[in-house]
Amino acid sequence: MAPSHKLPVAILGATGAVGQRFITLLANHPWFEIAVLTGSERSIGRRYGDVVHWVLDRAPPAAVADLVVQPTETVADVPVAFSALPTEHAREAETRWATAGVAVCTNASPFRMHEQVPLLVPEVNADHIQLVEQQRSKLGWRGCIVANANCATATLVMPLKPLHQAFGVEKVIVTTLQAISGAGYPGVASLDILDNIIPNIANGGEEHKLETESCKILGSYNGEGIGFAPITLSANVTRVPVIDGHTAVVSVGLKQHASVEAAAEVLREFRGPAVVQGLPTAPPEPLSLRTEQDRPQPRRDRDLYGGMGTTVGRLRPCPLFDLKFVTLSHNTIRGAAGGAILNAELLVAEGIVA
Amino acid sequence: MAPSHKLPVAILGATGAVGQRFITLLANHPWFEIAVLTGSERSIGRRYGDVVHWVLDRAPPAAVADLVVQPTETVADVPVAFSALPTEHAREAETRWATAGVAVCTNASPFRMHEQVPLLVPEVNADHIQLVEQQRSKLGWRGCIVANANCATATLVMPLKPLHQAFGVEKVIVTTLQAISGAGYPGVASLDILDNIIPNIANGGEEHKLETESCKILGSYNGEGIGFAPITLSANVTRVPVIDGHTAVVSVGLKQHASVEAAAEVLREFRGPAVVQGLPTAPPEPLSLRTEQDRPQPRRDRDLYGGMGTTVGRLRPCPLFDLKFVTLSHNTIRGAAGGAILNAELLVAEGIVA
Amino acid sequence: MAPSHKLPVAILGATGAVGQRFITLLANHPWFEIAVLTGSERSIGRRYGDVVHWVLDRAPPAAVADLVVQPTETVADVPVAFSALPTEHAREAETRWATAGVAVCTNASPFRMHEQVPLLVPEVNADHIQLVEQQRSKLGWRGCIVANANCATATLVMPLKPLHQAFGVEKVIVTTLQAISGAGYPGVASLDILDNIIPNIANGGEEHKLETESCKILGSYNGEGIGFAPITLSANVTRVPVIDGHTAVVSVGLKQHASVEAAAEVLREFRGPAVVQGLPTAPPEPLSLRTEQDRPQPRRDRDLYGGMGTTVGRLRPCPLFDLKFVTLSHNTIRGAAGGAILNAELLVAEGIVA
Amino acid sequence: MAPSHKLPVAILGATGAVGQRFITLLANHPWFEIAVLTGSERSIGRRYGDVVHWVLDRAPPAAVADLVVQPTETVADVPVAFSALPTEHAREAETRWATAGVAVCTNASPFRMHEQVPLLVPEVNADHIQLVEQQRSKLGWRGCIVANANCATATLVMPLKPLHQAFGVEKVIVTTLQAISGAGYPGVASLDILDNIIPNIANGGEEHKLETESCKILGSYNGEGIGFAPITLSANVTRVPVIDGHTAVVSVGLKQHASVEAAAEVLREFRGPAVVQGLPTAPPEPLSLRTEQDRPQPRRDRDLYGGMGTTVGRLRPCPLFDLKFVTLSHNTIRGAAGGAILNAELLVAEGIVA
Repeated sequence: MAPSHKLPVAILGATGAVGQRFITLLANHPWFEIAVLTGSERSIGRRYGDVVHWVLDRAPPAAVADLVVQPTETVADVPVAFSALPTEHAREAETRWATAGVAVCTNASPFRMHEQVPLLVPEVNADHIQLVEQQRSKLGWRGCIVANANCATATLVMPLKPLHQAFGVEKVIVTTLQAISGAGYPGVASLDILDNIIPNIANGGEEHKLETESCKILGSYNGEGIGFAPITLSANVTRVPVIDGHTAVVSVGLKQHASVEAAAEVLREFRGPAVVQGLPTAPPEPLSLRTEQDRPQPRRDRDLYGGMGTTVGRLRPCPLFDLKFVTLSHNTIRGAAGGAILNAELLVAEGIVA
Repeated sequence: MAPSHKLPVAILGATGAVGQRFITLLANHPWFEIAVLTGSERSIGRRYGDVVHWVLDRAPPAAVADLVVQPTETVADVPVAFSALPTEHAREAETRWATAGVAVCTNASPFRMHEQVPLLVPEVNADHIQLVEQQRSKLGWRGCIVANANCATATLVMPLKPLHQAFGVEKVIVTTLQAISGAGYPGVASLDILDNIIPNIANGGEEHKLETESCKILGSYNGEGIGFAPITLSANVTRVPVIDGHTAVVSVGLKQHASVEAAAEVLREFRGPAVVQGLPTAPPEPLSLRTEQDRPQPRRDRDLYGGMGTTVGRLRPCPLFDLKFVTLSHNTIRGAAGGAILNAELLVAEGIVA
Repeated sequence: MAPSHKLPVAILGATGAVGQRFITLLANHPWFEIAVLTGSERSIGRRYGDVVHWVLDRAPPAAVADLVVQPTETVADVPVAFSALPTEHAREAETRWATAGVAVCTNASPFRMHEQVPLLVPEVNADHIQLVEQQRSKLGWRGCIVANANCATATLVMPLKPLHQAFGVEKVIVTTLQAISGAGYPGVASLDILDNIIPNIANGGEEHKLETESCKILGSYNGEGIGFAPITLSANVTRVPVIDGHTAVVSVGLKQHASVEAAAEVLREFRGPAVVQGLPTAPPEPLSLRTEQDRPQPRRDRDLYGGMGTTVGRLRPCPLFDLKFVTLSHNTIRGAAGGAILNAELLVAEGIVA
Repeated sequence: MAPSHKLPVAILGATGAVGQRFITLLANHPWFEIAVLTGSERSIGRRYGDVVHWVLDRAPPAAVADLVVQPTETVADVPVAFSALPTEHAREAETRWATAGVAVCTNASPFRMHEQVPLLVPEVNADHIQLVEQQRSKLGWRGCIVANANCATATLVMPLKPLHQAFGVEKVIVTTLQAISGAGYPGVASLDILDNIIPNIANGGEEHKLETESCKILGSYNGEGIGFAPITLSANVTRVPVIDGHTAVVSVGLKQHASVEAAAEVLREFRGPAVVQGLPTAPPEPLSLRTEQDRPQPRRDRDLYGGMGTTVGRLRPCPLFDLKFVTLSHNTIRGAAGGAILNAELLVAEGIVA
């Protein structure tokens, strides 16, 4: 399933916070090699190490720092591009790269709800990748676009999937406590968040994303498109003074009632499709269920499996619905760059990219 | 309604964090004067200023610092005592003081759900004070015990009250983001909460308190006791890196559906009973409704009306229930010491204490 | 000494963080009344409450929120203007207002080291106000410009003054731990400061300001100008995750050695000039000396005397110089808006503004 | 130099925060294997995983969690023991283990200044290990005790060493900004440190440790003992809201003046003794010099080389002494458990332990 040689990849919008995360995660990737970095006007033609304001730990790898930043407008000759483009530029640029034959694994939001674009969380809905064929026939793209979920959605759908399969999820009320890194850099002003909570996410559409993306991801491919899962969600989002790691507090109403024990077993046994399990970036198990009364915690659980694990805890009955629990994953790895890389690995494993 | 002279009061358990808050709030109180401070074995007979590890701003007032700490076992000759006793000592000590004729306004939890003890949030259920008569006849206390609500409950019931009156609250799912001061001192270890969230409150019973206390407070006095409000609540509590101010994210199901506009009007017009409005510690309005997309915030809204105000925001429809909103108040003022002082003022205003 | 009626004042650059602090502090000022707010292009002609992104607690006072923002270019008919202008606009605008007859009390830095401009910390060098006469004769200004010190300098010079008077300060090594509010809004990105320290202040010139402003402030007026104090300072500045309150760790070398006891006495007895003591914004005592091993602390000591107090602690011998201590004050009150208001009060008290 | 087989080691005081760090760092150590964990009364005879309140990320390795906790009183048959014992128990227990033949690498303070005990930072003073011979002859120990430096001292002496060698360090004024993990668990109360600075370290002796340990570490072995370096230090310590990583702001007076360039070269070229360079836990380079204006930063630089690196930055002239700089390293790795492990590796490499 592994490619015979490392595939050169591009990172679109490489100077931002998510772009930097892509660089860190791809530094020693067994299948991919960073060949092209694109950036904004200001940085084109300059050495990446000289233009980036590096906000992650330490510094970018030397080889990457020496790359000269390219314009996003020019499609490079690479099989895969990772897009960390801002929303306002993503639609046009990604279309251009996909049209020209590149498989674009995007973290941007514009195409997430597009009918022909798979919104992928591989452990949950790897089969949605079949939409790529329709992209090519209907939209005339020689490459493709595959989107990963909103960072908070990614945390939520992971435990919802096995529950939905086993018992049928009908209703979800979710409150998120989201880390500041989700807002990029400079993002949240320290004066707004130190000793404070903001009861919303500044982009304004976060709750809507959670309520709609989840239904698409948990939906099923019916040969022509995605039939959305008939789940009603009510989302409340907050920003908290945590660096990385989104926490979601969830109440779930099920079609068929499940005891805590039955739900725990289903969560523990969830593995996702076999094709995903062996991918380089896939965690050994998609979900880890903790039984302590005070887990998961972002600082202590976000780095599980290199930030690709999802930790669930406090599973208990809900007086109003069926079950309550807390779920957590790393928002800029599992919920952004790492998720997009896992999507690309799936494209390779499935032979869509070669 | 004001007493003709300042009433001497005792503070039981005066060295702890809540005890300190009582001292700060009573420093220039128009009706009450701190006469007695009680403390644990270690501090009895010593100058308060010498034994207290002051954790609030600056230092205790000089006059209070000079008081000699008394044993909690000995009932003082005061009409009112404020109890900041730890749960394990509260039941016995408070009973002794109440039996001996003192009106005990307690922040401790043991008596909150006691059949004859009013669980008071004056703006919400001042009439529950009528239970005091039953305390005296059934339990033989010459004084009385009046409890204030759990700090998170206090934040929640304030907006629930007018909604319940107008539309009938039936279902509530609430997730709290609670400040560290709620755990007292030393309380939450910094290693547990910096850059972190704890998805529970360490005492273990916080969610149960929210689910039960709310029904008692929103219940009605029927001449013999409190008929609990028939509301089903599902509570999720978390600890966040915020000094003061509990935030609660709430979804509410109503008997009679209400639009956001109708609910906003009801919240805005809520004033509470007339007898409460003029009390020295009562806020000018019990609820402040904000319409910004990012309020309430603990650091910016907790000190409203000296920490006695409650701020509600983000009122909007809930896809599953009827309404969603966020409510916030100061947990150690409105939700603890300030609430107990308001209870004492009500006892004076109603002529129960003289 | 008080004016016979409230003087109308302007706030230049009223929408920024320091401008907001001016508004809060002047809300109920006994001598001054906010009459004019100026702002940038974007906000001119609009209601202040509609254009300001309020970052302090709660909201601006209603009367001020209703003022229409004026252009900074047009000098208003007011005796006093408070300048919270950004460095790049301050020089030209403040000159225009001073020339036209307004007493400009500025928090901006351009004029701080100007030969004819007093750099005032009233308790320390109220007599430097005599420079105003030279401003008028040499520069032809009908009004004047009076600057307050850099926020970290203000914290430092307060204890240095009495030590300098008594023993002669010769050498100072100071390390500051500065609050994020000193960077304005949005200022420091939360991703840069949560669980972190930045070993510098972004403007780059902070250490130089500390090393030079201190010598001017502690210098003496010789009838023609300021003779700088012959002190060599070495400053190290850091940014820390604290909202408000700059802490400075100081080692001092003296001309005449002083014991800790002698220094403590001098610090305790420091009162500043009589004319300053009675000003509305002056703290009851300029310095408060604490003897606990763990004070001063920003969160617990910054609000002393409405944020105008300075707290000194940990006074002890220095193995290399003579003495060591820690000093702290509120950076946006004592070190910015409050300091400028105290300067304005001094101008009124001295009859320079009427 | 590597042992022919993995050596079994004991961890004394394994349940505390430093004990946990030993476990994490030894989990996959090429030379050592955890064989024995000791703990307090409460935990003896019980499974480690059941008694430890794990405060680091995730959870202890399964194999270690299954070990049964032993009494510290009973000396185990292991060549090496790592001591994370609290100060009050360390002296007696460590003496017992050393007497019985175990090489005790301790993080505790009691023996640090003992005449026959090397206070080791291997890159700085590996030759002090020769004191072990004297321990054995004078004290009759069959094993030995080797101490690592106080966590703040470790950060400081690393850059001082090459400067001392090249130019002769005479005077040091240092202010530390120390992370909360240095206080262990529960350690610093969150109410004391959120939005706050504490201008001291609670144990009270931290400044003295910095001022004395540095002179011993930078001293030289003269065949009989350590001749202390004739350096006068003045230390100021503070606690800051940072999880891990101690920052020290330093001014240095030299015997022979050095330019910034000369000092930078000396710092860059510092490598430490050859025997240390190849040890498994030794960082590739002891010091990393950064030239950005805002480095080092604890969150971004503490994990360099697995937490064993030291980062120096802001090297510049000091107006009073010769040079100023900022130095940083990970306090519970470089400054505690990792330092002790490096010491043990040196003992093995030098043939003292086999």
